[in-house]
Amino acid sequence: MKSRLSDIEIAQSTDLKPIAEVARQLSIDDEELECFGCTKAKISLKIFERLKDKPDGKVILVTSINPTPAGEGKSTVTVGLSQALWQAGRQSIVALREPSLGPTMGLKGGAAGGGYAQVLPMDDINLHFTGDMHAITSANNALAAFIDNHIHQGNELNIDIRKIVWKRTLDLNDRALRETVIALGGKANGFPREDGFDITVASEIMAVLCLATDLDDLKKRLAAMIVAYTADQKPVTVEMLGVQGALALLLKDAIKPNLVQTIEGTPALVHGGPFANIAHGANSLIATKMAAKLADYVVTEAGFGADLGAEKFMHIKTRAGGFTPGAVVIVATVRALKMHGGASAEDLKKEGLEPLKKGIENLEKHIETISAFGLPYVVAVNRFVHDTEKELETVLGWCRDHGHPAALCNVWEEGGKGGLDLAKEVIHVLENKDHQFSYLYELTDSVEDKLAKVSRIVYGAEGVKLTEKAKKQLQEIKKNGLGNLPVCVAKTQYSLSDDPEKTGRPKDFFITVRELKPSAGAGFIVALTGSILTMPGLPKRPAALQMDVDENGRAKGLF
Amino acid sequence: MKSRLSDIEIAQSTDLKPIAEVARQLSIDDEELECFGCTKAKISLKIFERLKDKPDGKVILVTSINPTPAGEGKSTVTVGLSQALWQAGRQSIVALREPSLGPTMGLKGGAAGGGYAQVLPMDDINLHFTGDMHAITSANNALAAFIDNHIHQGNELNIDIRKIVWKRTLDLNDRALRETVIALGGKANGFPREDGFDITVASEIMAVLCLATDLDDLKKRLAAMIVAYTADQKPVTVEMLGVQGALALLLKDAIKPNLVQTIEGTPALVHGGPFANIAHGANSLIATKMAAKLADYVVTEAGFGADLGAEKFMHIKTRAGGFTPGAVVIVATVRALKMHGGASAEDLKKEGLEPLKKGIENLEKHIETISAFGLPYVVAVNRFVHDTEKELETVLGWCRDHGHPAALCNVWEEGGKGGLDLAKEVIHVLENKDHQFSYLYELTDSVEDKLAKVSRIVYGAEGVKLTEKAKKQLQEIKKNGLGNLPVCVAKTQYSLSDDPEKTGRPKDFFITVRELKPSAGAGFIVALTGSILTMPGLPKRPAALQMDVDENGRAKGLF
Repeated sequence: MKSRLSDIEIAQSTDLKPIAEVARQLSIDDEELECFGCTKAKISLKIFERLKDKPDGKVILVTSINPTPAGEGKSTVTVGLSQALWQAGRQSIVALREPSLGPTMGLKGGAAGGGYAQVLPMDDINLHFTGDMHAITSANNALAAFIDNHIHQGNELNIDIRKIVWKRTLDLNDRALRETVIALGGKANGFPREDGFDITVASEIMAVLCLATDLDDLKKRLAAMIVAYTADQKPVTVEMLGVQGALALLLKDAIKPNLVQTIEGTPALVHGGPFANIAHGANSLIATKMAAKLADYVVTEAGFGADLGAEKFMHIKTRAGGFTPGAVVIVATVRALKMHGGASAEDLKKEGLEPLKKGIENLEKHIETISAFGLPYVVAVNRFVHDTEKELETVLGWCRDHGHPAALCNVWEEGGKGGLDLAKEVIHVLENKDHQFSYLYELTDSVEDKLAKVSRIVYGAEGVKLTEKAKKQLQEIKKNGLGNLPVCVAKTQYSLSDDPEKTGRPKDFFITVRELKPSAGAGFIVALTGSILTMPGLPKRPAALQMDVDENGRAKGLF
Repeated sequence: MKSRLSDIEIAQSTDLKPIAEVARQLSIDDEELECFGCTKAKISLKIFERLKDKPDGKVILVTSINPTPAGEGKSTVTVGLSQALWQAGRQSIVALREPSLGPTMGLKGGAAGGGYAQVLPMDDINLHFTGDMHAITSANNALAAFIDNHIHQGNELNIDIRKIVWKRTLDLNDRALRETVIALGGKANGFPREDGFDITVASEIMAVLCLATDLDDLKKRLAAMIVAYTADQKPVTVEMLGVQGALALLLKDAIKPNLVQTIEGTPALVHGGPFANIAHGANSLIATKMAAKLADYVVTEAGFGADLGAEKFMHIKTRAGGFTPGAVVIVATVRALKMHGGASAEDLKKEGLEPLKKGIENLEKHIETISAFGLPYVVAVNRFVHDTEKELETVLGWCRDHGHPAALCNVWEEGGKGGLDLAKEVIHVLENKDHQFSYLYELTDSVEDKLAKVSRIVYGAEGVKLTEKAKKQLQEIKKNGLGNLPVCVAKTQYSLSDDPEKTGRPKDFFITVRELKPSAGAGFIVALTGSILTMPGLPKRPAALQMDVDENGRAKGLF
C-alpha cells in the first residue's frame, strides 16, 4: 500500500509527457494542436472535418448516487476507468468538466480527480488553465455592460430596468455580490437598479458554450439568449442588442477543447463546466464529440447524482449532440450509502452494516432510472480506506443477488490497475447487451408533462406542483414559443426529492416548482425547486489561506 | 505609396514566424519558453539567472507631447523604431504595455501599434492574449471577497466597513459599476456597504505586478497593500488577511513576460499595462529588464505625455528597477502641435503654420523636462498623411535652430524603413553624448517638496496646493511611515496643468492636489488632481457592434 500523499504531492511528483506526445497517441496533427506550455493544448475544431467519416467511439457516462458529505469520488472513478481501459488495451479519452476557481479558493482547494486517478497538470487546471472561464466571465460581463449602456444611451429597445434577467458573474465565491444596487452616483453612471452576481459556471454563456456544436451554432445560441423584457413583457435578446458577434469573438478560443493527460499519461479533454442544477452539468458537447472521433471509448461524467446530471445528460446533452451513450457507470461508496441509511458523519469510522443495507435503496433508485432510459450500466463500488470487507461484500452481494453488474474499484490508491475489474464489466455490458436507448419524455410533451415524467420516473415522486408564479411564467414561456424546449430541474443534489434532508429513497412526495425561467440560448427551461444558490460564499477559513507559490513558481496548498 | 488598409487587414495579411524562431534570434533556450499557440509565448524568469553576467542593453524610452484628439502614434513609433534598429543591423526588443479589453470593446477597437509598425498577432493581443489581465482581475476580486468574508465571519481585524479602500475590478468599460451598494439581501450575504468597480488596469495589483522584480518581491508587495482601515484609523494590509500567497499563486504565470513579434518579425515583449495617471503607466519592469538582458537595445514607452508617463518612468520605474535609461524619444505630430497652438479638429485638414508655430511650445516644455533629467533625446516627428512639406519643415527647422536632435519618421506607412533616420539619430545620441542621469527629487524629500518639484520642473507650474483633505491624508501617510515613497500624480493628460482645457504651454498656474492615497504595495503615493475616471463607460455605438468571428475563428472588427 502506497503511503498517503496528498493529491498535489502525487501530482507534483509525476513526470508529465509532452502534450504533443499525448496528441500523437491520438493521431492529432501538429497543426490541429495549439500548445499552452508543454503540458496543455487546445485542439482545433477543424479536426471534425478531417475525421468526419471515422465512426464514433462509445460514450460511457459516469454518474452516482445522491452525493453526501462523505464523498463519492465520481471524478476519480471517471479518470481511473479511462486509465484502466488503456491498461486493458483499449484506446480511451476521459472527458471532464473544468474546475471553477471559486470553490478552489474557498472550500475544495481543487478538483480534477484524486490520488492516482487524476488529470494533470493539477495546479494549472485548478487555477487559470487555458483561460476558458475568464473568457466566459468577460463575455458575460461585456453583455451586462452593453445592456446598461443601451439603457443609458437612450434605451431604444424600451428595456424595463426592473425586468433585466441577465446577471453579472465572477469566477469566485463572493456572497457580498449576490444582491447589489448598481449605477448609483448620478446621471453619468446610468440608471440605478437592482442587480447581482452569479458564479461564472452559472452563466447561461457557460451552458451555451457547452451545448454548441460549432462556432456558428455558438453565435446562434448567444443571439437567442433573453437578457431582459420590455415594459409590455416582450423578450429582449442578444440579437436585438447586436453583440452576438462580439461575444462569439471573445469565446473563439474558449470553444476549443483542452487536451491534458491523466497521471498515467493517457489523454484527457477537460472542457467546460456548467452547474448541474440551473444548467445541465456536463463537460462540453464539442469535447465529448471530439473524444468520440479520436478514441474508441469516451469516459465522461455529469454533475451530482443520476437524478440531476445523468437525467440532463440524456435529455439535454445527447439531444443537442445527436448521439446515444453506450453505457452508464453508477458510482457508490460504502460511506455514502451508510449516510443514506441514516448514519451520521461520526458513525462512518466504524462498521455499519444496518445503515448500509438501508442506504442501498438510494442506489437502487438510480439503477431503475438508468434502466428506464434503456441503457446498460455497471455499479462501481469506489473503495475508501476505512471500508470493511463485510461492508464491501454487502453492497457487491446485493448487486449480485439482484442481477446488477458491479465491480469494486480502488483507483484513488492504485490508478488504472484499481479499475481493471470495472473496465472489464463496462466492456462486457457495452459489447454483449442489446439495449435500446429512449428518452423519458418527448420535446412535444407539454412542459407540465415533461416535469411530471422526470419527477415520477427519475425522482420517484407522486407528481409535480407549480406555484402560481411558475404557472404565470409558463404562460409567458409558451407565448414566446419556447414550450418545446427540454426542462432543466434545479433541485437539491442531496435528495431524490426537493428536500435536502430526505436522504435514502424518499416516498410519497411531490416536487414543487416555484419558478420557471427560459434559457433560450442554452435551449432549456430551468425549473427551480427550493432555493438554489448561484453565488457561493467563502468559509471562515478559506482554502486560499494555505495557498502559496515558491520562488520557482511551484504551487502549494492545492489539494 | 501603399493603399490604406486597416490595421487588422494589414495584420491578418502578414505571415507570422513561429514564436520559437523569434526566441532563437535572442538565444532563448527552449526550456525557457512556454508557447501559447504558435505565435505567443511566455518567457521563464529563470533566464535572469543564466544571463546574470551579461551586460544590459540600452533602454530607449519613447514619450510624447501632451496627447490631443488628433493622435500622436507613440506606440506606432515605438514599434517602428525597434523595427528600424533591426534594419540598421542592431538587435532590439520593443517592450510595450498590454492592451485592455475594456477600451477595445468600447472605443478603440485595439491597440498594439498600427499600420506597418504593429505587434502581432493583433487580434489575440487585443483579446485575452495570455490571460494576464484575467489573472489580475481574479486576484483583485478574490482579495475583495476575502475582505468581505473576513468581516462576515467575525471581523477579527476590526475593519471599518466605511473605510474599505480596496475596490473590485473588471477589464471592461462599465459605468454602471462605478458606484454600487453590495451585500444586500440579509444576514447570509454579509454587511451592506458602498463599493465600486475600477477597470482592471487601475488595480494596484497591476502596478505591483509591473514593478515587482521577481515572485518573491511580488509577494512582498502584495502583502504590503493597504485594503482598509480600522475604526481607529490603523491600516489593514493583505498580510494581516494572510492571503498574499494565494494572490501570488494566482499571478505566478502573469508575472512572466509575453514574447510576440512585430510585423517585420522582430521580437516584442508585451507585458503589463497600468494606468498612467493613478499608476505609473509603463510595461512591466521584469519585461524591460529581460529585454535589456536579451538585446542591445530596448525600445519602450510610457503612457500619455512626458509630464505623466516619462516622469513616472524616471522616478518610479527606474528606481524600482535600479537602471538608467540611455535616451528618450519625444514623439510629436504636426496635427497635435497645431491643436496645442489653438487649431480645432476641423482646422487640421488644411495647412496651419501659425497654430503649428505656437503649438511647438508644448514640445519645447517636454524637451526641457527630459533635459532636466540629464538625458539625451531625439524629437520624432511622426508623419501623418495630410501633413504638408512646409508644416514638417517648420517643426524640423525649429528643432535644428534650437539644437534639438530630430528626425522625421513614417513608420505607419513604411514600417522600419520609415524609422531609419530616427534610428540613426537615436544611435548617435546614445553613443556620442556624455550625459548624467539624475532624479528631479530625492525620496527623502518631503511629500510636499516632491510634489512641488514635479509641478515646477515638469509641469511648469508656480507650485502645488494641497486641499485640507489632502493635508489630513498626508499626516496619516507620514504616521504610517510611507512618507518616503515617490509620488504618482494623477493629472489630466491633455494639459501640462491640471486643467484639460489649457493646451500648449500654460503659465502662471498652480497644481491643486485634492487627495493623497498611498499605494503601499506598488510603492508610491497617488496625488489626485481634478477628477480621474478609473472606470470608463461605453460610447453610444461601442466598437463591439462591428466585431465578429467567422466560422474559421478569424476575428473581424478589430482596428
